[in-house]
Amino acid sequence: MKVERLHVNYKTLEEFKKFREYGIQELSMMEDLQSNIIENDSISPFYGIYFGDKLVARMSLYKRDAKYDKYFNPPQDYLEVWKLEVLPQYQRKGYGKALVDYAKSFNLPIKTNPRVQSHEFWTSLGFTSADYQMERDLGENPLLWQPADSSSLTDEAM
Amino acid sequence: MKVERLHVNYKTLEEFKKFREYGIQELSMMEDLQSNIIENDSISPFYGIYFGDKLVARMSLYKRDAKYDKYFNPPQDYLEVWKLEVLPQYQRKGYGKALVDYAKSFNLPIKTNPRVQSHEFWTSLGFTSADYQMERDLGENPLLWQPADSSSLTDEAM
Repeated sequence: MKVERLHVNYKTLEEFKKFREYGIQELSMMEDLQSNIIENDSISPFYGIYFGDKLVARMSLYKRDAKYDKYFNPPQDYLEVWKLEVLPQYQRKGYGKALVDYAKSFNLPIKTNPRVQSHEFWTSLGFTSADYQMERDLGENPLLWQPADSSSLTDEAM
Repeated sequence: MKVERLHVNYKTLEEFKKFREYGIQELSMMEDLQSNIIENDSISPFYGIYFGDKLVARMSLYKRDAKYDKYFNPPQDYLEVWKLEVLPQYQRKGYGKALVDYAKSFNLPIKTNPRVQSHEFWTSLGFTSADYQMERDLGENPLLWQPADSSSLTDEAM
C-alpha cells in the first residue's frame, strides 16, 4: 500500500469523480487546467493509493501556520486533513489507516472535520473530539490528533 | 409556516436527534444543560419550524463580524447558516425555503457550506458558489447570497 502525491491531470481529475466528496475544489482544478492557469501534472494537495492503475483512496492535506491555529495549545503548525475517502468496495482493508498514518508521519498535530459518520474510525486512530466552541466550529465536528512525543497539550488535557 | 427561535431544553435536544447533522454542537449543549452551565430554555443559535408539536425543520444562524469576513468585497457583517435540514417526510413542501427566507430577512449577506448534495435548492434561492480558494475553503463548498439592494459586490462580480 503505497501512498502517492497526486498530480493534477485529466486522468486523475476523472478518477476524482468516483469519490462522494467531489466539490468545487475539483471543479476549480479542472477549470484551471483547461485554461492553462495550472500546468498539466502540477502537484496537488491530494494524496492517494492505487490498486493496479485505479485510484481507490484519497485525502487532501494542507499545512496551517501556527499563527492561524485555533485548536492546539500553545498554537503550533499543524496539518489539516480533508476529503479522506476510500471507495466503497475497498473499505475496511486498511487504505484509510494507511493515509492517516502517512499524514501522521509528518509528526505534526492533525485536525480534521469528517463529513460522514466515521467517528469510530478516527477514534481507533487516536483522534479525539475538540471541545465545541460555536464561534470557531459552527457546523464542524473537529477531531484532533497529536504526536505522542509532543510536549504540548490540548485545551482539554490542561 | 412560522419560523421560531429554538430554546435549549431537553425536549428540543431530543428532537434534534432526528436530524442527520446531529454533532458535537448538540452534544455540547446537552452537557452544558445537564451541568447547569446554561440555563434551561436559554436561547440557542437554532431556528425551526413546527408541524403540530413536532420540530420538522431547523437551521443554525450566526452573525460574523466584518473583520472576519473572507467572502465578500468589501468585507462586511454577514450571516453564516449551517445545519439547514428538513426531516425526510416533510421535504419539498417549502420548509427549507421558509428558513432561508427568514435568514434573508436580516438583509445581510449569507454564507453557507451545505454538507449534502443540495446545489439545486440553493441555486433556486439565489445562492452562488464562491470562487474556490484552497487556503480559505479546504474541503468546503461555500455558497453565497447578497441582498439585492446591496451596493457591495462579490469578488466574482468585480
